[in-house]
Amino acid sequence: MDHPRILVQLDSDPHSSVFDAVVAVDSEIDHLLQYADVEPTNARGLVHGAMFTRGPAQLRHTAIFIGGSNVAVGEAIAREVQQSFFGPVRVSVMLDGNGSNTTAAAAVLCAARHVELGETDALVLGGTGPVGQRVARLLLGQGAKVRLASRDLARATAACRQIETQMGKNYDQTLTAVGFADDRSAEEHLAAVTAVFGCGAAGTTLLNAAQMQLGANIQVAIDLNAVPPEGLAGIAATDKAVERQGRIDYGAIGVGGLKMKIHREAIKTLFTRNDLFLDAEEIFEIGQNLEAARA
Amino acid sequence: MDHPRILVQLDSDPHSSVFDAVVAVDSEIDHLLQYADVEPTNARGLVHGAMFTRGPAQLRHTAIFIGGSNVAVGEAIAREVQQSFFGPVRVSVMLDGNGSNTTAAAAVLCAARHVELGETDALVLGGTGPVGQRVARLLLGQGAKVRLASRDLARATAACRQIETQMGKNYDQTLTAVGFADDRSAEEHLAAVTAVFGCGAAGTTLLNAAQMQLGANIQVAIDLNAVPPEGLAGIAATDKAVERQGRIDYGAIGVGGLKMKIHREAIKTLFTRNDLFLDAEEIFEIGQNLEAARA
Amino acid sequence: MDHPRILVQLDSDPHSSVFDAVVAVDSEIDHLLQYADVEPTNARGLVHGAMFTRGPAQLRHTAIFIGGSNVAVGEAIAREVQQSFFGPVRVSVMLDGNGSNTTAAAAVLCAARHVELGETDALVLGGTGPVGQRVARLLLGQGAKVRLASRDLARATAACRQIETQMGKNYDQTLTAVGFADDRSAEEHLAAVTAVFGCGAAGTTLLNAAQMQLGANIQVAIDLNAVPPEGLAGIAATDKAVERQGRIDYGAIGVGGLKMKIHREAIKTLFTRNDLFLDAEEIFEIGQNLEAARA
Repeated sequence: MDHPRILVQLDSDPHSSVFDAVVAVDSEIDHLLQYADVEPTNARGLVHGAMFTRGPAQLRHTAIFIGGSNVAVGEAIAREVQQSFFGPVRVSVMLDGNGSNTTAAAAVLCAARHVELGETDALVLGGTGPVGQRVARLLLGQGAKVRLASRDLARATAACRQIETQMGKNYDQTLTAVGFADDRSAEEHLAAVTAVFGCGAAGTTLLNAAQMQLGANIQVAIDLNAVPPEGLAGIAATDKAVERQGRIDYGAIGVGGLKMKIHREAIKTLFTRNDLFLDAEEIFEIGQNLEAARA
Repeated sequence: MDHPRILVQLDSDPHSSVFDAVVAVDSEIDHLLQYADVEPTNARGLVHGAMFTRGPAQLRHTAIFIGGSNVAVGEAIAREVQQSFFGPVRVSVMLDGNGSNTTAAAAVLCAARHVELGETDALVLGGTGPVGQRVARLLLGQGAKVRLASRDLARATAACRQIETQMGKNYDQTLTAVGFADDRSAEEHLAAVTAVFGCGAAGTTLLNAAQMQLGANIQVAIDLNAVPPEGLAGIAATDKAVERQGRIDYGAIGVGGLKMKIHREAIKTLFTRNDLFLDAEEIFEIGQNLEAARA
Repeated sequence: MDHPRILVQLDSDPHSSVFDAVVAVDSEIDHLLQYADVEPTNARGLVHGAMFTRGPAQLRHTAIFIGGSNVAVGEAIAREVQQSFFGPVRVSVMLDGNGSNTTAAAAVLCAARHVELGETDALVLGGTGPVGQRVARLLLGQGAKVRLASRDLARATAACRQIETQMGKNYDQTLTAVGFADDRSAEEHLAAVTAVFGCGAAGTTLLNAAQMQLGANIQVAIDLNAVPPEGLAGIAATDKAVERQGRIDYGAIGVGGLKMKIHREAIKTLFTRNDLFLDAEEIFEIGQNLEAARA
């Protein structure tokens, strides 16, 4: 074993994530180097240490994982990491701050088991958060229509603009910002959509039982909140393709199995080349391949 | 190797213990995740990361070790760890702050090689410290009579009450608090006991040479102090079942071999189930089994 | 695998070096224990943890690497580490703060491929820095004459005295402090020497193109600066035994291959005994053996 697989875990929290560490160990790495309290300003030296130690042919045996509970800081670290590389002297990178990319990919792929995404009209509640924005991005990428909802319309609108900037594309026809404040919003939007994703903060009710009744055309509902009370009333965290009120329901734990599989597969993928950058879309594609192999 | 053995080392010191880390590596683990500066208030997230990453059948391949020089903080972390589990979704835990549990277990088991614990009248000097309290607990559990001694009777009394609370049992007949302040104390107690354990702070003389002469009935004397001067005068740190003045003597290093064996065996035991909590009594039992296998 | 190879990485920086960690992994260790924010005052406990965990016959499977960007702090930690040992109860230690020892060894050995060191008159520019001082030490040890140059003559003189103290030897005949401030210094010294080493701070020009022309007798020139502009004008970082102006030139990357080989071999050497202390001279000797095997 001349060149063991090394994963460098860059985490902005004071203690780097045990969760990410265990998943890394379960993804056939040989050595995990854990770094906590990582900031965009101190990432460069760590990256250079990963780049300048192995020959070009061996660089693919070293990779970087960027995590941490603050997704925005993780994104800033990722930008700094990419700017630290010199041309082909680089290592592969996976970004999954707070599990946002793997969670969003798994949620959208669970939905894709039951609906044709290209024909889906989706409501993304809690759409301004890191998971919500990623769910919206992935849905748009698959041709779905997306209503990105927040209690605050201005924030929803800003999130839509940010998505368009990130994707380098306008989604006039398919992306709509929604201020989702009361029962009137629920009435207006729930009847119109065929899929709903609950991506709010832990323990926040996004739709109550009465509102859930309004979604007569909803074929699939996915609640990513694992902390009681439910984000989408009536959906248990353990739900995994449970039929209820004419819908297929998934809870956070029900999505979790696929999320874990995607996370592990993404880590393994890092070591196939030295120039990958795995963000939401790339991780989603890894999940698509897993789903295709499963079918 | 689908599910490598992962030990999560939670340590309250700024640098997690190298000692505990090396012993872990020598106990057939595959990956050690070291966490320093752990406090009761930040343990929960680390524990959840260890719980929620592997399936139920694989949880026994992940375990938690709680160490650190401050034994009381380690105990508080251990309580928080146990409260972080959800029913059967848990991993096994070993508590050994500052080596207190493995040291106490080894000390009592060294004594048990030479005396019948159930018939022993033991004097535990430095009995209010973490090792002394554990030695007393283990002796009581084996049916010994214990005189728990401190220079300050009030502290000795408080330690006895705490032991009774921890054990959920009154030891009116067998546990006595002793204020051990001067030669009169020595005269009173040393003649009466058959075993003496020195569990004081490093470099503190507990019994001087003249006092040691008073223990005419002492069959076994164990000094856990490794830093000169001796805790029990005349006993060298390297003593291992050395006959002296009609007694069998052990020093800290003499006890250390068994302590290390118990520590390693306890780590290995963690990975046999996912629901163990190894505190003083459980670690002592592991040591008993090692001693039985040795006999 | 009863006794895995453990390397304890002691680093004075807030994040321990990824570079040193990857090289360690590539040097056949089994477990790396990374410690950051190490200071001379907190090293002792870490060292004791490495010493007191394995039996005498197994101590050679544990070793300590001292790194960190501040070379002086690394040296102070190394002194504390050595004072923490008890006679034969010790583990082997390698000191390579900021790569200074492996870099200096590789630079001098690259020169030795082309000149007889014992007959060399060397100019060490940036000679007061950690790499410069080590290059000077190693050259003196091989019988070379050394002009240790700094822009500030007083600092150059102090560095020479420090080297004599470290080596326990006077080098009246062979070590000269040089204040290298302007073209007159260049004229005086460059014509006289047969080898020049650029050991200045990153991105600092030590000799400009005109000055480089003055070294008519220089047979080998080594520029250890990897950050533009060049330290010795005209030498590219990737130069590896490039013939130019009658000289053989090496840049930082050109030296880097041998440096990495030496670093890895030194780590492996640590595990052959439990009582090695690998500083500049010992690491240089490891490099000499590598060069001899290569020839």
